[in-house]
Amino acid sequence: MGILIKNGEIITASDRFVGDVYCDDGKIVAVGPGLDKQRAGDTVIDASGQIILPGGVDAHVHMELPFMGTVSSDDFETGTAAGVAGGTTSIIDFVIPARGQDLLDGLSMWKEKAKKSVADYAFHMAVTWFGDRTLSELETCAREHGISSFKTFMAYRGAIGIEDPELIQVMDQANRLGALVTVHAEHGDAVVALQQRFLREGKTAPRYHAMSRPSPVEGEATARAIMLARMIGNPVYIVHLTCTEALSAVVEARNRGQMVMAETCPQYLLLDDSVYDKPDFEGAAYVMSPPIRPKGHQDALWAALAAGHIQTVATDHCPFNQVGQKDMGKDSFAKIPNGAAGIENRLGLLWTYGVLEGRFDVHRFVDLFATQPAKIFGLYPRKGSIVPGGDADLVVFDPAATDVISAKTHHHRCDRSIFEGFAVKGKASHVIVNGRVQFKDGKLDVQRGAGRYLPRKTVTFPRPVGA
Amino acid sequence: MGILIKNGEIITASDRFVGDVYCDDGKIVAVGPGLDKQRAGDTVIDASGQIILPGGVDAHVHMELPFMGTVSSDDFETGTAAGVAGGTTSIIDFVIPARGQDLLDGLSMWKEKAKKSVADYAFHMAVTWFGDRTLSELETCAREHGISSFKTFMAYRGAIGIEDPELIQVMDQANRLGALVTVHAEHGDAVVALQQRFLREGKTAPRYHAMSRPSPVEGEATARAIMLARMIGNPVYIVHLTCTEALSAVVEARNRGQMVMAETCPQYLLLDDSVYDKPDFEGAAYVMSPPIRPKGHQDALWAALAAGHIQTVATDHCPFNQVGQKDMGKDSFAKIPNGAAGIENRLGLLWTYGVLEGRFDVHRFVDLFATQPAKIFGLYPRKGSIVPGGDADLVVFDPAATDVISAKTHHHRCDRSIFEGFAVKGKASHVIVNGRVQFKDGKLDVQRGAGRYLPRKTVTFPRPVGA
Amino acid sequence: MGILIKNGEIITASDRFVGDVYCDDGKIVAVGPGLDKQRAGDTVIDASGQIILPGGVDAHVHMELPFMGTVSSDDFETGTAAGVAGGTTSIIDFVIPARGQDLLDGLSMWKEKAKKSVADYAFHMAVTWFGDRTLSELETCAREHGISSFKTFMAYRGAIGIEDPELIQVMDQANRLGALVTVHAEHGDAVVALQQRFLREGKTAPRYHAMSRPSPVEGEATARAIMLARMIGNPVYIVHLTCTEALSAVVEARNRGQMVMAETCPQYLLLDDSVYDKPDFEGAAYVMSPPIRPKGHQDALWAALAAGHIQTVATDHCPFNQVGQKDMGKDSFAKIPNGAAGIENRLGLLWTYGVLEGRFDVHRFVDLFATQPAKIFGLYPRKGSIVPGGDADLVVFDPAATDVISAKTHHHRCDRSIFEGFAVKGKASHVIVNGRVQFKDGKLDVQRGAGRYLPRKTVTFPRPVGA
Amino acid sequence: MGILIKNGEIITASDRFVGDVYCDDGKIVAVGPGLDKQRAGDTVIDASGQIILPGGVDAHVHMELPFMGTVSSDDFETGTAAGVAGGTTSIIDFVIPARGQDLLDGLSMWKEKAKKSVADYAFHMAVTWFGDRTLSELETCAREHGISSFKTFMAYRGAIGIEDPELIQVMDQANRLGALVTVHAEHGDAVVALQQRFLREGKTAPRYHAMSRPSPVEGEATARAIMLARMIGNPVYIVHLTCTEALSAVVEARNRGQMVMAETCPQYLLLDDSVYDKPDFEGAAYVMSPPIRPKGHQDALWAALAAGHIQTVATDHCPFNQVGQKDMGKDSFAKIPNGAAGIENRLGLLWTYGVLEGRFDVHRFVDLFATQPAKIFGLYPRKGSIVPGGDADLVVFDPAATDVISAKTHHHRCDRSIFEGFAVKGKASHVIVNGRVQFKDGKLDVQRGAGRYLPRKTVTFPRPVGA
Repeated sequence: MGILIKNGEIITASDRFVGDVYCDDGKIVAVGPGLDKQRAGDTVIDASGQIILPGGVDAHVHMELPFMGTVSSDDFETGTAAGVAGGTTSIIDFVIPARGQDLLDGLSMWKEKAKKSVADYAFHMAVTWFGDRTLSELETCAREHGISSFKTFMAYRGAIGIEDPELIQVMDQANRLGALVTVHAEHGDAVVALQQRFLREGKTAPRYHAMSRPSPVEGEATARAIMLARMIGNPVYIVHLTCTEALSAVVEARNRGQMVMAETCPQYLLLDDSVYDKPDFEGAAYVMSPPIRPKGHQDALWAALAAGHIQTVATDHCPFNQVGQKDMGKDSFAKIPNGAAGIENRLGLLWTYGVLEGRFDVHRFVDLFATQPAKIFGLYPRKGSIVPGGDADLVVFDPAATDVISAKTHHHRCDRSIFEGFAVKGKASHVIVNGRVQFKDGKLDVQRGAGRYLPRKTVTFPRPVGA
Repeated sequence: MGILIKNGEIITASDRFVGDVYCDDGKIVAVGPGLDKQRAGDTVIDASGQIILPGGVDAHVHMELPFMGTVSSDDFETGTAAGVAGGTTSIIDFVIPARGQDLLDGLSMWKEKAKKSVADYAFHMAVTWFGDRTLSELETCAREHGISSFKTFMAYRGAIGIEDPELIQVMDQANRLGALVTVHAEHGDAVVALQQRFLREGKTAPRYHAMSRPSPVEGEATARAIMLARMIGNPVYIVHLTCTEALSAVVEARNRGQMVMAETCPQYLLLDDSVYDKPDFEGAAYVMSPPIRPKGHQDALWAALAAGHIQTVATDHCPFNQVGQKDMGKDSFAKIPNGAAGIENRLGLLWTYGVLEGRFDVHRFVDLFATQPAKIFGLYPRKGSIVPGGDADLVVFDPAATDVISAKTHHHRCDRSIFEGFAVKGKASHVIVNGRVQFKDGKLDVQRGAGRYLPRKTVTFPRPVGA
Repeated sequence: MGILIKNGEIITASDRFVGDVYCDDGKIVAVGPGLDKQRAGDTVIDASGQIILPGGVDAHVHMELPFMGTVSSDDFETGTAAGVAGGTTSIIDFVIPARGQDLLDGLSMWKEKAKKSVADYAFHMAVTWFGDRTLSELETCAREHGISSFKTFMAYRGAIGIEDPELIQVMDQANRLGALVTVHAEHGDAVVALQQRFLREGKTAPRYHAMSRPSPVEGEATARAIMLARMIGNPVYIVHLTCTEALSAVVEARNRGQMVMAETCPQYLLLDDSVYDKPDFEGAAYVMSPPIRPKGHQDALWAALAAGHIQTVATDHCPFNQVGQKDMGKDSFAKIPNGAAGIENRLGLLWTYGVLEGRFDVHRFVDLFATQPAKIFGLYPRKGSIVPGGDADLVVFDPAATDVISAKTHHHRCDRSIFEGFAVKGKASHVIVNGRVQFKDGKLDVQRGAGRYLPRKTVTFPRPVGA
Repeated sequence: MGILIKNGEIITASDRFVGDVYCDDGKIVAVGPGLDKQRAGDTVIDASGQIILPGGVDAHVHMELPFMGTVSSDDFETGTAAGVAGGTTSIIDFVIPARGQDLLDGLSMWKEKAKKSVADYAFHMAVTWFGDRTLSELETCAREHGISSFKTFMAYRGAIGIEDPELIQVMDQANRLGALVTVHAEHGDAVVALQQRFLREGKTAPRYHAMSRPSPVEGEATARAIMLARMIGNPVYIVHLTCTEALSAVVEARNRGQMVMAETCPQYLLLDDSVYDKPDFEGAAYVMSPPIRPKGHQDALWAALAAGHIQTVATDHCPFNQVGQKDMGKDSFAKIPNGAAGIENRLGLLWTYGVLEGRFDVHRFVDLFATQPAKIFGLYPRKGSIVPGGDADLVVFDPAATDVISAKTHHHRCDRSIFEGFAVKGKASHVIVNGRVQFKDGKLDVQRGAGRYLPRKTVTFPRPVGA
C-alpha cells in the first residue's frame, strides 16, 4: 500500500514548495504538486499547513553500549523507537570492540544486538586497540560489510583509545579504502593528569569531570587529528565538537582548503557548565565527554552551524539512569558513566532554537538534521532527502504544535532528561519509516525488528586545495 | 507548447537523481522519473547521459554602462545573449545614476536600455551620491519597483563613491526596508594616493593599476563595511571579493555569527597578476577593480568557496574593447576603462576548474551558480533551482563536450577574452529560457526584447548571533 | 650641588644591580657601586633597601585643555606637580589648535601655557583641521621646534577630527620629515550614528557613552590607520588602545613585520564598564574616549604588555571635576566632558598590579613607564633611563610603602579619582627632577616654571619586513 | 691585572652611551665615562669608534655529541674556541643520556668531556627516556648541580624522544622545582610515516629529509607542548622554532598571557629550502631537524624577532663533516647525521642581517644574542650584560670590518659552512673572556680547560594571565 502526503510544504536542504509526496513499497515514488498517483487502499495524509521533512539521520548514537562497568540504558529497540518519536528514522551506531576483541567479532555482536531495531541502522567501526589483523579487518569492514567510516578515540589510552602511530595507520588504511576516519578528539593523557590532580585534592564532584577536560584539551587533539589527516592526505570528521578552540582548528583547516568536517550535539549548543553546580548529585546527569562548556562556547557553535563550519548535528545518545548507573560515581566523578539521552529531542531543539530563533534557515536545518549526515556517511540518496527513489522516511511536521521536554514524557529509557523543561515549538504529527506510519498524533506504532542494516557506500570528498 | 526533458541527471544545490523535467507555459510543471505529462506538439529533449541544471543567475553585470568616458561594449541584447550561450538565464545589472541624477530617473533610463534584453533581468540600485531625496527614493525603489538591494562604492570618492556617513544612512534605510546593502570595498583614498605616486614617478603601465590597488586596501574596506553593518544591525554582501585580507574579514565576521555574504568572480579564481606583464599593452585587457591578485590569493578563494565563506560566483561582466576603449589609457593606467567580459564563461570555468578539479561538488556548483544568487537577491523560487512552479530556465549540460575559450568564438561583443585559451570540459547542449529553447547545439536562437524585468522580494536573513 | 644616591637597587629596562647614582648640574654623572665622586655640600640619599628608577615619561596628557565647552582642571603647574608626586618627571602634552587656527599659533599658545610647568614638557602637534599651510607648518614644527610626532583624530569629524585623505597627507609629510604619526582610532561616524540613535531613544545616561563607542568601532579604525601607514610606508603609534579588536589589528601587523606601536592606560587595564552603572551620575567620572571596556578586554591588554605588543603605558590625564564640569552632561551623555585624572597614579598602579601581581617583570615595568616613551618620542637618552649624561630625573622607590588612592589625598586638581580605593604597594620616597629633590617623604617641593621645553629628535625605527 | 676598555660605545639591551669598561679579577668593576680606575700593568684597549657588547650566550649547542652512529665534529675545546672567535663567550650544551643511562651518569660523562672547554659552559638536562629514577634525578640536577632547565624531544620516539604522559611528568616535576622545560617540537610519528613513504617510493635524496618533516608537523607539536604547559601551569621554551605554524601557536599563547618563550637560529632566518637542491649531495650539509623551510617562513621569523615573540637566537651548533659523516646517508636521507656548524657566525649574521638591514635595533640585538639567553636560563647577571659585578665577558666590536663566511676560514672543525659566501659587516676586534683577551685582531689566544662549569639559578617568570 502506498502513502500519499498531500499539500504540505516540502522542504529540502535547498528547496521549498507546496506539493505532495507519494510513497509506495517503502520508497518515495513521486514529489510534486497535484500528484494523481494514488491507488485504492493508499493512506492519505493531509499535510495542509504542515511541513514535509526528510526523516532525520543521527550519525552518533550508542545503544546498549557496555561502558564503564554498566550498559547504556536504551537498547536498539527502545532507542530507535525514541528516535522515531523524534523524527529520526536512521541511526549510525558504533561497533566498539573490547580490547583484544577482533573487529569482525565485534561487528557480529553489534549486528546481533541491533536486530531488534525498529528503524534502519548502520555502524561506524571503532578501532579501540591495534593488533595484527586490525588493518585487514578494516578492509573487510569496508569492502564486505558496507562500513565506510572508522572511529578512533584520542582519549582513553589503554582502554578504547589508540596512540598516534596507530591513528596514522588507520588513516593510511582509510585512505586506501576510501573510508572516512572520525575522531573523538581529547588529549587523553592531559585529562588523566588533571583527573589525578583533582582526585588527589579530594575534588570528587561532577563539576571536576568538566574541569579535568577543559576546552584546550579538546582543541589540541582536534588540531592534531587535522594535522595528521593533512599529512596522510585524508578527509577527517571530528565528532561532538564542543568548543571554540576545536572550532578554530577546524576553521583554520577549512580556510586552507583541507577537507575537515565536524559534528556537534544539541547539549553543546544549549547548555552551559552551570549544570554541574546542580545540587544532590544531579550534575552527574550531565557528565559526558567532552563535557558541557562554559558560557561563550555555545554562541560560537551556533555561528559555526550558520557559517557552514560544522556540517552535522548528532546527539551522542548514550543514556544512563541516575539511579543505579550515574550514582556509581558518587565518590568519584571519574566513575560516573559518561553519556546522556537525546535522540528524541534533536528535531524539536534544532528547529526551535535554530530556525525559529533565526540562527539559520529551514534548509540549513534539513541539511544538518538529515542530508549532510546521509551524504557524509554514504547513505544518500537512499536516506537524507526527499527525492524519487529514496527510502520513504518522512516527517510531517506541525509547526504550530508545542511541547515541553521532560523525562516524564520522553520515550528514552532514562530517568533524567538533560533538556528537562526546555520548551519546543513544532512537532512531528506523523513519522513515516520505510513507507509505514510509525508515529502519529503523539503515539508510536513501531515494530521490533523492522529496522534493517544499512551497508554504506564510500564517498569521494572534494580534495584539499593548497592543503 | 511544453517541453519535456527526459532522462537527465537532475542536479540541484542539494539533490541529484535521474528523471524528467516538464515545462509548460514558461514554468516548470513537474520533476521526477517517468513523467507522462507530455502533450502533442511538445518539444522533447532526450537528456540521457546529460545533466539538467537550473539556469544560471549572474548577480553582477554591467551592460552598456557609461564609465570612464566610454560605454561597456555589450548592450543588454548582446550581453544577455552571451549569457544564454553560457547557461546564464537571468542577470542582475546595476542602475548607476550619474552624480546629481535622481535614482528613479536613473532607474527609468536603465529600464529603457534593458528592454532589448533576450533574457530576464533585475537591477541593484547604486547610491552614487547623496541628496535630499536619496533615502526616500530608496524606499520607492524597494517598495514600488522590487529593487531590494542597494549598491555602494567605498572607492571612487567624488565620482560614484560615497563616504562613510552616507553609507551608514544607506544601511540604516536598508534596515528599515529589509533591503540588502552590497559593497564595492576598496579604500578609495588610499588608491588615489598610490595612483598619484606612481604617475608622479612616470609609472603609467597597466601593471601600476594593480599596484595602486593592493589587497590590503580591499581588506581594510571590507572590514570597515562589515563593522558598520554590525553597528547598524544589517546583513551585508561584499561584491567581487578577491583577496585573503578581505576573506579574513568575512570569515572573522561569520565566525562571530554576523550575517556577511560575499561574491567572487572567475577571473579572481583563475588568473594571477602576471597577466599585467603581457607585452604590447595587452595587460590593459585585465584592468579592472579590484585588480587580478598575486599568486596565493586564488587558492584561498577556492577554499572559501568549498568551505562556504563565499556564497556566489558572479562575473562583473563589463567589457571594453582593446581597440578604441582600453587604448584610451595608453599613457596612463588610470585612464584605462575598468572591466572585462565574462558572462558566457562562468558555467564552463566553474564546472571545469571547480567540480572536475575536485574543489567542490556538483551541488555546491549549482548553489554558487544559480541557487544562492537567486535566494540572496529575492528571486527564489522563481529563479535559481528546479522546482515545480519555478520559471522554466534550464540548462541541459553535456559533461563530455569540450571547448577552448577564445575571443574569436565567444558571443561577447569584445575583441579580447581574459580567459583566452582556457580549456573547458562540459557545455550546454540546450538552454531553455522562460520555457523556450534559446540555445541548442552551439547556436543561439534568442529574441530581442523577450527578457522581462524581474521585481525582487526582500529577504529575511538569519539574524546575527553574538554579533 | 650634586646628589649622591647610595646603595639602591638600580633597575633599568634591561639591568639591575646594587649601586650608587651620582648627579651633578642636573645630569647623571656616574652609575655604579661604591662611587666616590661626592663633594662637600652634596645631598646624600641613602637608598638601602630601596629601588632607583628612572623618572617616568608620560607620553599622553592634556593640561588645561579647552574641550567640550570647558577646560581640563589641571593646569601645567598643578598637573606636572601631580606627576612629580607620582614619579613622572616629563610629560608630552598635545598642541590642539582650534579649527582654523594655524598650527604654529597653537604652538605659541601652548608654549605660553606650559611655562608654569614644574617639570620638563614636550608637545605632540595635533592636526585638527586641514588648510593650505598645514603641511608646511608641520615641517616647521619638526625642523625648527623639535616636534617630531603628529597627532591625528579619526573620530570627531568636523570638530578636531580629520578625514582619511588628510590623514594620508599627514602620514606622507611625516614620512618625509622622519616624524611619527600617532592616531586616536575610533570610527567617528559610527559613533555619531549610535549617539543619535540612543539620544533619539531617550537613553541619555553615562552608560550610553560607552555603548555608543563599542570596541569594534575602535578596532576598525585601528586597522584602518595601520593599513594607511602600511601603504605610505610609515611607522604608526596608536594612542590609548583599549580592546581586543584593536589589539588584534596591532598584533596582526607586528606579526607581518610592520612597525606599529601602541599605548594603553591604567584605566583600561584596571577598570571594567560596570563603572558606568554607578548611581547618582557618578558614572560620568569615567566618561572618556575610548570608554572603559567590558570585562575580558583587560586581561588581553595585560597579556599584550607582557608579550610586547603594547610598548608604553601613558595616562591620557585630562581631568574634569564632577561638580561644574561633568555635570554639564546631566541630560545627555554626549555633553559630559571626556577625560579623567591619572598622571600621579601610573607608577603605583603599574608596579602593584603589573610587577607585584607577576604580570611582567621590573624591567618591562621600567620600559613601559619611562624608557620606551622616551625612545619612541625622541627624548632618549636625555630622558627615560639611568645612564651617564642623562638628565637627573630619578625616583627612589620604597617597595615596602603602602597607600590607597583617593581624591581626598591625590595631587590632581580634581574632585574625583577613577581609582578611588585602589590599594598600591610601593611608593616614591624621593623624586629628583633635573638634579633637584622635588618630592620627599610624601611632600612636594616644586618650583613653578622650573620645567623646560623639550625639543625632540626624530627617530629611525626598524623598517617593515615583508609588510 | 685589569683591563680598561676606553671610549667605546657601550650598548646593552636597553641603553647606549660612550664610555669605558674596567675589568679586574675576571669581573666587570666599573662602567661609565672617564673611568680612572686603571693601575699599572693593566691592559688598555682603545675602543674609539668601536662598540662594546656583552659576550654572547649560545643557549643551544652540541659539542662532541654521539648521534646517528657518529659524533659531532667539534669537541668542547674546538667548539668553544670557535664561539670565542665569534664573540660567544658562554654556551649551554645538553646532557643527552643514552636510553637506559642514568641522568646523573650522563651528567658526569658530559662534565668530563667539557673540561677542555676554553670558555664557560652550562648544561640543559635532556630526558631521553623514562625510568623509575628519572624524576628524582631531575630533582638532584636542579637542586645540587645547578641544572635548571630540562630538554625534551617530541620527535624520536623510541630513541631519545619521550611520549606525552612522560612529558607531562617532566613538566610537573619542573613545576615543583622551578625549572624550565624546553621542547624540541616535531610530531615524530608523523615524520616516521612520511619517511617510510618516501623511502618506499625510492625517494632517498636530502630533499626528502625536509619533505618528511614539513612545517605543520612542527606547528602541531609546538601547539601541543604549549597546551600541556598550560594545563600543568608551567612556562615553556620552544627550541629552534622555524616556521609560521609554530609561530602562530606561540603568538596565540602569548596573546592569551601564557608564558611561552621561543628560540630560533640563523639558518632558519637566512636560508630557504632551495639548499636541498644543491647537486652532488651537497644538500646533505643542510640536513638538520627541523629542516630549512620554504621561502616565506623566514620573513615571519624576522618579524617575530622584532615584535618580541621570539626571545633568543641560538645556533644548534652540531657540526658533521661532509666527508666521512654526512656521506653515511648517501643512500638514504634518513641516515644523514642531522646538524651543522654555526656558533662562530651568530654575531656577524645577526648584526649584518638584523641590525644593519634595519630589522631590529641594536638593543634588540644584544637582548637576543646575550641578555635573554642569560636571563631565561638563570645566568644573569653573571652573564649576558655589561653591569658591575658581572663576569668580564666582552666583545669590542668593529662595525667597519667586513668578512665573508667560508669553511676555508672558519674556526669550526667542519669541512662545510652552511653560510658559505655570506658577507658580514662588523666583526669582533677583541673578545674578552673571564677577564682575559682571548681573541684579538683575528687571532685566537685561548686556553684549553680555562672554561668553567656554570651552575644556574632557577628563574621566576611572570605568571600566566587569563591562561
